Amino acid sequence: MTDLTQDLLPEGLEDRLPQSAAAAARIQRAMLDAMAGHGYDRVRPPLIEFEQSMARRMDGVRTRKLFRFVDPKSLRSLALRSDMTVQIGRIAATSLADAPRPLRLCYAGQVARIAGDMLDPRREYQQVGAELIGADSVAAAGEIVELAIASLEVAGATGISVDFTLPDLVDTLADGPLPLDAATRETVRRELDAKDAGALVDAGGAAYLPLIHAAGPFEEAVERLAALDNTGALGSRIKGLRQIAERIKGRARLTLDPSERHGFEYQSWFGFTLYAEGVRGALGRGGTYRIGGSGEAATGFSLYPDALVEAVKADEPMGKRVFLPLGHDRAAADVLRAAGWRTVAALSDSDDGKALDCTHILSAGAAKPL
Amino acid sequence: MTDLTQDLLPEGLEDRLPQSAAAAARIQRAMLDAMAGHGYDRVRPPLIEFEQSMARRMDGVRTRKLFRFVDPKSLRSLALRSDMTVQIGRIAATSLADAPRPLRLCYAGQVARIAGDMLDPRREYQQVGAELIGADSVAAAGEIVELAIASLEVAGATGISVDFTLPDLVDTLADGPLPLDAATRETVRRELDAKDAGALVDAGGAAYLPLIHAAGPFEEAVERLAALDNTGALGSRIKGLRQIAERIKGRARLTLDPSERHGFEYQSWFGFTLYAEGVRGALGRGGTYRIGGSGEAATGFSLYPDALVEAVKADEPMGKRVFLPLGHDRAAADVLRAAGWRTVAALSDSDDGKALDCTHILSAGAAKPL
Repeated sequence: MTDLTQDLLPEGLEDRLPQSAAAAARIQRAMLDAMAGHGYDRVRPPLIEFEQSMARRMDGVRTRKLFRFVDPKSLRSLALRSDMTVQIGRIAATSLADAPRPLRLCYAGQVARIAGDMLDPRREYQQVGAELIGADSVAAAGEIVELAIASLEVAGATGISVDFTLPDLVDTLADGPLPLDAATRETVRRELDAKDAGALVDAGGAAYLPLIHAAGPFEEAVERLAALDNTGALGSRIKGLRQIAERIKGRARLTLDPSERHGFEYQSWFGFTLYAEGVRGALGRGGTYRIGGSGEAATGFSLYPDALVEAVKADEPMGKRVFLPLGHDRAAADVLRAAGWRTVAALSDSDDGKALDCTHILSAGAAKPL
Repeated sequence: MTDLTQDLLPEGLEDRLPQSAAAAARIQRAMLDAMAGHGYDRVRPPLIEFEQSMARRMDGVRTRKLFRFVDPKSLRSLALRSDMTVQIGRIAATSLADAPRPLRLCYAGQVARIAGDMLDPRREYQQVGAELIGADSVAAAGEIVELAIASLEVAGATGISVDFTLPDLVDTLADGPLPLDAATRETVRRELDAKDAGALVDAGGAAYLPLIHAAGPFEEAVERLAALDNTGALGSRIKGLRQIAERIKGRARLTLDPSERHGFEYQSWFGFTLYAEGVRGALGRGGTYRIGGSGEAATGFSLYPDALVEAVKADEPMGKRVFLPLGHDRAAADVLRAAGWRTVAALSDSDDGKALDCTHILSAGAAKPL
C-alpha cells in the first residue's frame, strides 16, 4: 500500500501515518514547551510571502530553492517559505521592533524546497527553533546551545553531541596575524573547510595548515587551537568557547572543528551543529548572526526533527485504548478519558474492539482487559 | 508597526504575534487532544500535492482557488492544499485502505487559497478536523457532532450553537412524493436555499414552499417538517435528526434549516454548521459524505479556529514569568520551570526583569515578586 501512496505524491513529499504523526506531534510539543519554559514566546509567520521580501533576507544560494508562483491578487511573485528564521528576523525588525531586548522568540512549522539533496531527498520538512534577538554574546550563545540541547532531550533524543565552529576564524586571522588578500582568503576558507592540506598550501595558505588538525574532541582541540594562537587574536573566542562548553558539560559529547564553514556562511563568531545517537545526519544547527536588513545582533538555532521522528516512530506509544460497547455508560467513558484512556465507541453490533486496537472494554463502569 | 508588517506581507496573509500565536497553539492542542481521547489518530499529509490528484478528489469550484505551480522535478503541476479533508480521504483510500473500519482519523494544519471572500479576506488559515471513515449512520453522525462540540468546548468556545440540515432533501422528495424533472430540481434546490418563495413558485416548486418555513429552533422546526412529511419519505431522516439532537441536548443551542444547501453540495443525508458566541461567522461544518474516488461512506467535520483565536487572543494568558539574575542558582531555576514558571535569564547587568515582562525574580532559591 505504501508504494501506491508514494505514487500519488510528488517525489520528496509524504504522508505521516498515525505512529509517525504522533511522534512528530509529541516531539514538536516537547520542544516548544522547553522553549516556552525558558521565556521564548512563539510567533507564527505565514506559509507564503512576497518572494522579494523573503529573498532580501536570505542569501542568493538558498533563494534558488524556493517554490515560487505569481499571486493573482497582487500580480507579484510569491514564495513558499523554505526557512522560518528569516521570517522571525522580519517580525523582530518590524512588528516587534519596539519590544524590549533581548527578545526571545520561538517557532515551529512546515517548510518546503523545490529540490532535496543527496543525503536527504525530503522536499517538505518540519523546522522548530528559537531566536534570541538583540544579543550575540557568550552568555547568549551559552543560553542558546543549552536550550537546543534541552529541546532535544525532552523530545527523547539520546547520545546528543554538539560540534562547535568559529565561522569567522579565517577573517579574524587574515585581518590580524596571518594576512591574506581577498581572493586568497576565499580559497583558504574553502580548502580549510574541505580539509584539503595540499590545496591549502597550493593556494598560499600554508600558515593556516595547523588549523586542519585543530579539530576533534573539544578539550584537546581547543588546547591545540590556543597553542596556535600565539598573537592572542583568537583569545576572546577561545575563552567564549570554553565558557559555553562548561555550561553543557555532562549533557552532550562536545567536539570542535574551528574551520568548518559549510552551512555557517552567514554566522558571525560562533556556530554549532547538533547530532543524536541513532539519528542520521545533523538534527539542527545554530549560532550568532546579524538579522538580514536590520543588522541587529542575534543568536539562535533551528532543529529539523524529521530524522528523529523516523528514528523513534516504530516505538511511539499510541495510548491505551478502551472499547465502549453500544449503550455504554457515557459518564463512565468521560471518567476514563479524563484518566488518560482513549475511548473507541461502537457504532453498530458488528464493531469489534480488538480489531480496533483496543486492549480493554468498558464494563460495569470500569476498563476490563479484552 | 502593525501597518508596516502588513505592508510587507501579501493581502490576506499575516503573522501571528505572541498572544495570538499562543491562543492558536492552545486551541489546536486542545482540539487534537479531544479527538485523540475519542480514539481519532492524527495523520499528517504534505502541504503540496499533484494538482491533478488533489483536484480529482475535489469539486471544480474549489479547485479554482488552489495556488498552483510547476514542479521542476516532475514537470507536473503542483498545488498548495486548500482543504485537508480530501487528503485524509486519499490516505484512507490508499495507505490505510486495509486498516479496520470504522477508521478514526484527525488532522490539523495550515491551508491556503488564492482568494479570500467578502466575509473573510484570509488566504491562509488553520484547519482542524476529524473523519470517521466507513460509516455514515445516525450513530456515526451523532459521534461526529458530539466530538465537534467537545472540541470547541475544550478550546474555550462558549454559547455553541449547531444548525442541522438535510443536504439531499430535495432529491429525496423529488424521487418520491413530490416529483420534479432534473432541470426544475436544480432550480428548486437553489431557490429553497435562497429562501425566495416567489422564485420557487415561478420555477414550478410550489409544493416545496412549506419547507421554507420549516426552519428555526430544532424542536419546532422538526415538528413542522414531520407534519409536512405525510408520505413518510423523510421518516428515517427525521428520526435520525431527533436521535442526534438528543445526544447533544444541553450542550449546544440547536436549529434546523432542512433546505440549506450552500456549502453542503457534497454531503449526503446529513450536514451541520457550528457557531459560538462572540465569534464572527461559522466555526466549522461537517456531515455525512462519500469519499471522492473510493466512494466509501464517511462522516466528519472541519473546524476553522482562526476566528475563535481572534475573539480570545486579547485575554490569552502568557504564563507567569520569573527573572533569573546573573549567576542565579541553576537548580532552583529548573525547579521553578518544572512547577510551571517561565524563566527569563539575564544575559548582562543591563537586562531588566520588569521590562522583560517578569512579575517575579529568583532570589534565595524562590520566586519573589518584582
